[in-house]
Amino acid sequence: MKDKQKRFFLSESEIPTQWYNIQADMVNKPMPPLNPATKEPLKAEDLYPIFAEELARQELNQTDAWIDIPEPVLEMYKYYRSTPLVRAYGLEKALGTPAHIYFKNESVSPVGSHKLNSALPQAYYNKMQGVTNITTETGAGQWGAALSYAAKVFGLECAVYQVKISYNQKPYRRSIMQTFGATVEASPSMSTRAGKDIITRDPMNQGSLGTAISEAIELAMSTPNCKYTLGSVLNHVALHQSIIGLEAEKQMAMAGEYPDMVIACFGGGSNFGGVAFPFMRHNILDGKKTQFIAAEPASCPKLTRGVFQYDFGDEAGMTPLLPMYTLGHSFKPASIHAGGLRYHGAGVILSQLMKDGYMEAVDIEQLDSFRAGVLFARTEGIIPAPESCHAIAATIREALKCKETGEAKTILFNLSGHGFVDMSAYDSYFSGEMQNYHVSDEDLSKFISSADALNK
Amino acid sequence: MKDKQKRFFLSESEIPTQWYNIQADMVNKPMPPLNPATKEPLKAEDLYPIFAEELARQELNQTDAWIDIPEPVLEMYKYYRSTPLVRAYGLEKALGTPAHIYFKNESVSPVGSHKLNSALPQAYYNKMQGVTNITTETGAGQWGAALSYAAKVFGLECAVYQVKISYNQKPYRRSIMQTFGATVEASPSMSTRAGKDIITRDPMNQGSLGTAISEAIELAMSTPNCKYTLGSVLNHVALHQSIIGLEAEKQMAMAGEYPDMVIACFGGGSNFGGVAFPFMRHNILDGKKTQFIAAEPASCPKLTRGVFQYDFGDEAGMTPLLPMYTLGHSFKPASIHAGGLRYHGAGVILSQLMKDGYMEAVDIEQLDSFRAGVLFARTEGIIPAPESCHAIAATIREALKCKETGEAKTILFNLSGHGFVDMSAYDSYFSGEMQNYHVSDEDLSKFISSADALNK
Repeated sequence: MKDKQKRFFLSESEIPTQWYNIQADMVNKPMPPLNPATKEPLKAEDLYPIFAEELARQELNQTDAWIDIPEPVLEMYKYYRSTPLVRAYGLEKALGTPAHIYFKNESVSPVGSHKLNSALPQAYYNKMQGVTNITTETGAGQWGAALSYAAKVFGLECAVYQVKISYNQKPYRRSIMQTFGATVEASPSMSTRAGKDIITRDPMNQGSLGTAISEAIELAMSTPNCKYTLGSVLNHVALHQSIIGLEAEKQMAMAGEYPDMVIACFGGGSNFGGVAFPFMRHNILDGKKTQFIAAEPASCPKLTRGVFQYDFGDEAGMTPLLPMYTLGHSFKPASIHAGGLRYHGAGVILSQLMKDGYMEAVDIEQLDSFRAGVLFARTEGIIPAPESCHAIAATIREALKCKETGEAKTILFNLSGHGFVDMSAYDSYFSGEMQNYHVSDEDLSKFISSADALNK
Repeated sequence: MKDKQKRFFLSESEIPTQWYNIQADMVNKPMPPLNPATKEPLKAEDLYPIFAEELARQELNQTDAWIDIPEPVLEMYKYYRSTPLVRAYGLEKALGTPAHIYFKNESVSPVGSHKLNSALPQAYYNKMQGVTNITTETGAGQWGAALSYAAKVFGLECAVYQVKISYNQKPYRRSIMQTFGATVEASPSMSTRAGKDIITRDPMNQGSLGTAISEAIELAMSTPNCKYTLGSVLNHVALHQSIIGLEAEKQMAMAGEYPDMVIACFGGGSNFGGVAFPFMRHNILDGKKTQFIAAEPASCPKLTRGVFQYDFGDEAGMTPLLPMYTLGHSFKPASIHAGGLRYHGAGVILSQLMKDGYMEAVDIEQLDSFRAGVLFARTEGIIPAPESCHAIAATIREALKCKETGEAKTILFNLSGHGFVDMSAYDSYFSGEMQNYHVSDEDLSKFISSADALNK
């Protein structure tokens, strides 16, 4: 490896100053979100009661391909961006592959994941509008941690509903949010009607992302000067995350390469879209043939086994209807350690692109994901988040195909976060107690059909 | 803050290719380590049974100011170095200080702390000599984690004795070591005579660094092709850590500044020496007047209240006698959360420099350290390790003095590691249960006098 450059950075002046909005370049635009009562398409104004106005406008903006990053957000980005693009020589050697493997290391963000890229602008736009309190839900806690810090940066109060099972099983992320100054409630909680109803019916309920979303939206709607924020799924989140791919494009050029494949794990689609869209742009506009592979958990297979249709984004049905690949909003994902991938639907833009054949998806079993994560830790020194392990497993699969065919493909994957706060998951893997989860076709069609009525 | 550069990086070609050995430039050289039985000065050969030969030679090298970093170590450094030098604008603003505060961010090392800087060369030199197994002790686990990964990189087996109380209270760091492929034993263990003796006498013994050192040395001495390694205190460790200060010197020049003060927390002295020595060189040789401040816990005050004399490095008395500031090798430090600072002695070089007035020390109460850490987290977004909180507290103290006097001093501190795996300590702080620990003069003189006989 002598004399070969391992990491590529951008100087502060080279950091992109605009986000990329792929909606403007899409051949088939995403279908609109619908008002669940009237089935009328929503306008940005319809979202103002819940979201900051600028975020609502970004959500539905299908015309502007480039959107300026506000100066105060860009200044905050410069505290941790560019993140490094790293050539994974250690992993390549262990696999004996001719592939060139690169990863974008978002785990060095101060909060440990890519989530801060969208938390900062979301907090900023809310602040600019005079909002004083923001609220959100979080599962494993990566998004909650990022938003807690972003709120502190821009002088907002922040309340986070954390899925109860994670609140209790992953106390470190709760501590991180509290250290950044946020209020954290285990969801379901007694602080909302939605939460109270569930606890009354089922006192031992361990919560779900769907329930936590319902609680956070209810709090936002019932509290003066309070807005709701979301860390994935939505179009404006993928917009902000495009900073990952825009940087990576410049950094790959520094390495003298262009990716044949771009791989990321897939929960709601924000880290996937973030790294993929700036490259996909060249597939759409310039005839590039890069392959885009979403790595989802086999136990939550919305892209590989779900259906494209309108569905709610949350369990209680408080959100607009969204056109997406979904397992049904009542889907109960298994308790895998990759909490950030336990979501029933896929973002609207991503779903349309999937439908139109611009990207593909693979499913990864839990044990495979950790096997990949441990190999990565031992060869690259970084312990990946359980979510990111899925991207690594998919990358290893492709790199081993290259070994068979002898092709020296260039693979770029996104390392969305580190796993320092998820070590109990690694313990479970090493103990032999970890298991894979299978979803039967029967169960799947039952959950999916829960959304059928919405599409009549 | 607009347009002001926040982070400074070196390109791979600018990364220093030599470590700096301050022993060569010291006016008063460190006194030699002594054989405890004969009181004869030790030669490098006397250390060969325990340490890799090159490390033993580096330990006693008082003539070469610059030592080449071996190519394979330098190549591994390039995966995470240079670490960023960051201007702490957020902290400055919160304090309202005219001081310019910079920190060297060693927390972005893949294992989360500066410890990897020495773990890599220690594993490398052992490998080159044909050693197959290395062993060490660890408290909180930062050193153990770094050595586990470094061993994996160079194809060595690694066994770590972790202080039992940390093994049980901080299971995440144990998991990290195991993920990197190391064997981890809680110390005292039944695998050594030293451990067995203690368990037989006191079955509930929770361990100490001193005991874990004794166990690791015993294992190294009794196992073929096995050597011992140490993550702090020793001269060769501070040598390797000089990469921190050498990089920082170049990065400060990029920022157009030179530090009036250099601050680091102090356990055995490796991160302190690492950041300080390259700047102290200019005090010794070029008449610079930089102030060097070691921040130690008030509950383990070897520099502020200890005595300079010969003492053992471990509890059982298996090490050579070292001339150092010490609280006595039988000193029982309070159970503060900064496990890496719970050591009775100070490195030999550092002790001599302290005696000669080149550096000073301040003591920090536990509650002050966490108050500082929380402010840093909320203003800079990074949750610091409990050890690093001490450096931040000392920095804040100096920055507030600047606010009083109106002086715009340039302060550089070393952020030795992040606190993602130490969140239970933050919980303890927020719960109000955390306490300060006072060591009475009476207790202190009792412990210190335990080393008196060794100096007769």
